[in-house]
Amino acid sequence: MNQTDEKVIGVVGGAGPFAGLDLLGKILQETLAETDQEHLTVISLSQPNQLPDRTAFLLGQTAENPAYAIFNQLQQLERAGAAIAAIPCNTAHAPPIFDVVMAQLQAAGSQIKFLHMIAETAQHIRQQYPRLRRIGVLSTTGTYRAQIYPDLLEPKGLTTLVPDKQLQTEVIHPAIYHPHYGIKALGRHAQRAREGLLQGVENLRQQGAEAVILGCTEIPLAIPETRLDELIVIDPAVILARALIREANPLKLKP
Amino acid sequence: MNQTDEKVIGVVGGAGPFAGLDLLGKILQETLAETDQEHLTVISLSQPNQLPDRTAFLLGQTAENPAYAIFNQLQQLERAGAAIAAIPCNTAHAPPIFDVVMAQLQAAGSQIKFLHMIAETAQHIRQQYPRLRRIGVLSTTGTYRAQIYPDLLEPKGLTTLVPDKQLQTEVIHPAIYHPHYGIKALGRHAQRAREGLLQGVENLRQQGAEAVILGCTEIPLAIPETRLDELIVIDPAVILARALIREANPLKLKP
Repeated sequence: MNQTDEKVIGVVGGAGPFAGLDLLGKILQETLAETDQEHLTVISLSQPNQLPDRTAFLLGQTAENPAYAIFNQLQQLERAGAAIAAIPCNTAHAPPIFDVVMAQLQAAGSQIKFLHMIAETAQHIRQQYPRLRRIGVLSTTGTYRAQIYPDLLEPKGLTTLVPDKQLQTEVIHPAIYHPHYGIKALGRHAQRAREGLLQGVENLRQQGAEAVILGCTEIPLAIPETRLDELIVIDPAVILARALIREANPLKLKP
Repeated sequence: MNQTDEKVIGVVGGAGPFAGLDLLGKILQETLAETDQEHLTVISLSQPNQLPDRTAFLLGQTAENPAYAIFNQLQQLERAGAAIAAIPCNTAHAPPIFDVVMAQLQAAGSQIKFLHMIAETAQHIRQQYPRLRRIGVLSTTGTYRAQIYPDLLEPKGLTTLVPDKQLQTEVIHPAIYHPHYGIKALGRHAQRAREGLLQGVENLRQQGAEAVILGCTEIPLAIPETRLDELIVIDPAVILARALIREANPLKLKP
């Protein structure tokens, strides 16, 4: 493939901004390149004040569906030249949001290829770990309640496990969202959030999980490990980064 | 200032891509925000295969002035809504490049405010460290030969020190550019590059430097410290991130 045939990658980066940054870093890390010029073209639009909170919508705390903002930002990326795009936010993949984005894109005649992070993750697990049966998921309460992972993984013969409800609402969700110690506020330096998330991992392990999906793109900032003892850690943002490179130019995907 | 009065930040991110990513991270780290929605709007265009190498041009190894690509990318950012912009690449600030970009912007009637990273750094040093006299600079050979830092710092009464020529060409420049162990190839994981750069720091210390400027935006990836023993480490990318926030919305600049 000639460099000029490479497709331009667009990233809806504001959901949240640290997760957007993390995806951009993962795209660079997964690209085969020795010089600046060998890297892919990536346009990132981080416009968080125009992107309503995804969990707040799914929980009915606001009527404003973030789908319209995501669609708008995808259109801006397409006008700027992006041919493929993604949003590194698990909760945005809940059908009440994602399906509306897809319908809007279709109605507008958009040509952009909008990847589905969680479908990519489900496919990756099936190919990479065909023997896995019991998978734990750590996520926001929006993703938890919307059942995004169970709905995509269980038809593939996988059992999904989640933390019990109290742990979810009192520890896991605040680890992501708390204005003082949450990852959305502190990025990589959220130590107390890490401790809460590791409690979640322990809870999933006790339920028999063989692997754990970091099902919110903020979580890998606090848990960068790819293994936690014998537990496999699956980061959908890495899988998404690799899917974007595969679509832009498969020859540049690191083996 | 109302959120709607905030200006949109544009980043020419492909020079190199890891440095672009690093600037985006520094903008987030230096912004006062507890939620996603409080962060500023940032558009990053990383189009490295359209951005010729800056040092290669300054050394006469190519006739292609990267100024035209930078101008073109600034125009794309302006069309996408950016009101202020910057390029996190010290070498791009050499007058044979930067002055041509400015002339092109003026000729095109551009309204974008294109910040000058090295002028911002010079001003920062004067305000923050008024007693400093002897400042070492680590950089690419392009920045080294173009005398960008001496030309801006010496009129302010500062003496600039650089590594001796052999160390510059055999150790410092390869630490940035080497296709196998350089920072442009490996990002944050360039351990051998770090060792070479620390040799440069030691050389500057022996010459009497009281501070050292990481005068290539790849260098802070390998030297994240803000102090090295008694030596002050100055990172122009942090200063640029803060200048962009100041221009976008000064109320969101961390104290």
